[in-house]
Amino acid sequence: MILIGERINGMFNDIKEAIKNKDPEPIKQHAIKQEESGAGYLDVNTGPTVDKENQPAVMEWLIQVAQEVSKLPCCIDTTNLNAIEAGLKVHKGKALINSTTADQAKMDIFLPLAAKYEAGIIGLTMNERGVPKTSADRIALAMELVVNCDMQGIPTDDLFLDPLILPCNVAQEHAPEVLETLQQIKTLSDPAPKSTIGLSNVSQSCVNRNLINRTYLIMAIASGLDSAIVDVYDSSLVEEVAATKILKNEDIYCDSFVKTYIQS
Amino acid sequence: MILIGERINGMFNDIKEAIKNKDPEPIKQHAIKQEESGAGYLDVNTGPTVDKENQPAVMEWLIQVAQEVSKLPCCIDTTNLNAIEAGLKVHKGKALINSTTADQAKMDIFLPLAAKYEAGIIGLTMNERGVPKTSADRIALAMELVVNCDMQGIPTDDLFLDPLILPCNVAQEHAPEVLETLQQIKTLSDPAPKSTIGLSNVSQSCVNRNLINRTYLIMAIASGLDSAIVDVYDSSLVEEVAATKILKNEDIYCDSFVKTYIQS
Repeated sequence: MILIGERINGMFNDIKEAIKNKDPEPIKQHAIKQEESGAGYLDVNTGPTVDKENQPAVMEWLIQVAQEVSKLPCCIDTTNLNAIEAGLKVHKGKALINSTTADQAKMDIFLPLAAKYEAGIIGLTMNERGVPKTSADRIALAMELVVNCDMQGIPTDDLFLDPLILPCNVAQEHAPEVLETLQQIKTLSDPAPKSTIGLSNVSQSCVNRNLINRTYLIMAIASGLDSAIVDVYDSSLVEEVAATKILKNEDIYCDSFVKTYIQS
Repeated sequence: MILIGERINGMFNDIKEAIKNKDPEPIKQHAIKQEESGAGYLDVNTGPTVDKENQPAVMEWLIQVAQEVSKLPCCIDTTNLNAIEAGLKVHKGKALINSTTADQAKMDIFLPLAAKYEAGIIGLTMNERGVPKTSADRIALAMELVVNCDMQGIPTDDLFLDPLILPCNVAQEHAPEVLETLQQIKTLSDPAPKSTIGLSNVSQSCVNRNLINRTYLIMAIASGLDSAIVDVYDSSLVEEVAATKILKNEDIYCDSFVKTYIQS
């Protein structure tokens, strides 16, 4: 289970200010602290306030600053093609592109970029008609992503399928459909594609957000989830993820299993 | 999801003393407090210190005392046939017998009793050869329990199959096999049998027992688990169970979803 730390994102005020002031310190601090808290990737997102033409330079800077102090690879989180490529050019190690949808036009643009840089890529199970209601329709789009990756020469397990969890207070019926989709993803090919979710979306505008987040994450892991974009500073969540590694028989039990997971 | 409160059990010192002194107060207090904490059944077990010949009278007394102050049905937890029948005779509402194995000799004794009193019964997926290692072998025994219930006229959904979780520090490979078994139980018949586990066994002699317990419970619920014998005083666990009701789309989201679950 890979935790992708969500914190280097311009939607947070400290990162927004750091970008504005070209101050690398908050970026570095979050890179280090997220790695120490159990992250396996750092999500990097310029946020909504950076102009489109400045996004490539800002993405390049954020990735360079983060990788100066952390060995973690980055999840390059933007829909701006030039920003993705600017990030890929300076990235050390195997990057993860976040994301393409299953629109043919988008797959035709983003997948060749993943192939060129040998990056992983998150594929959202949605297209120009929006997010499907059922797991069956999500799986149909997942299959289009798998086929297109194959045509582009991208190894299937470099594809991270995201079945798109929606807030449970307004689109509650999606939550079990996403769990069902996660189970079925493992049957799509051999080797199977990986899976991911943007966890905090499940609890948007809800009470007890951390409770809902960690409970849904554990349900999703039991359904086969491989990775998620999360708040790794939520120690209750990280501890439960560590416990799933024991309970799925993936890490050998030892009394320090939480520490072992975080440091691995 | 039904939580079966584990607390009225002579292995706990306060209950052992209450039985010895014929003091109903601790029994009543735990009956009330467990109901208030989210229990849907009260497990009742005389514990290891009551002589075999006294077990029927003690079981009868425990159930009567508990049901004086609580509307909850009881889970009659003993392998002593006479104690089970003594309990069933005084029990108000639909009792749950805990338990029979899949040994033919045991099924031939315990299942007719469940049929006679229209009680539910927990069926352990083990026989005279012990606990199977794989989910496939657990399911084979589950099917024997289903068939024998059918022959005795017990409705399939009165059977609670228990795939037997073992401590993860000594028998770690069983944990994912039990999750797999829980998924497959739902495919055995229509209506499907119910399922249950004795949760705290998963963390015997481990560190962070509550963390392991609640994480495994949520994984098991995602795999289809219907009920579990648990410590309902563990409020973190009960809150996460309440969240699963929302995330499986079984209860409608409201801001007081934890309170709603506990009171339902």
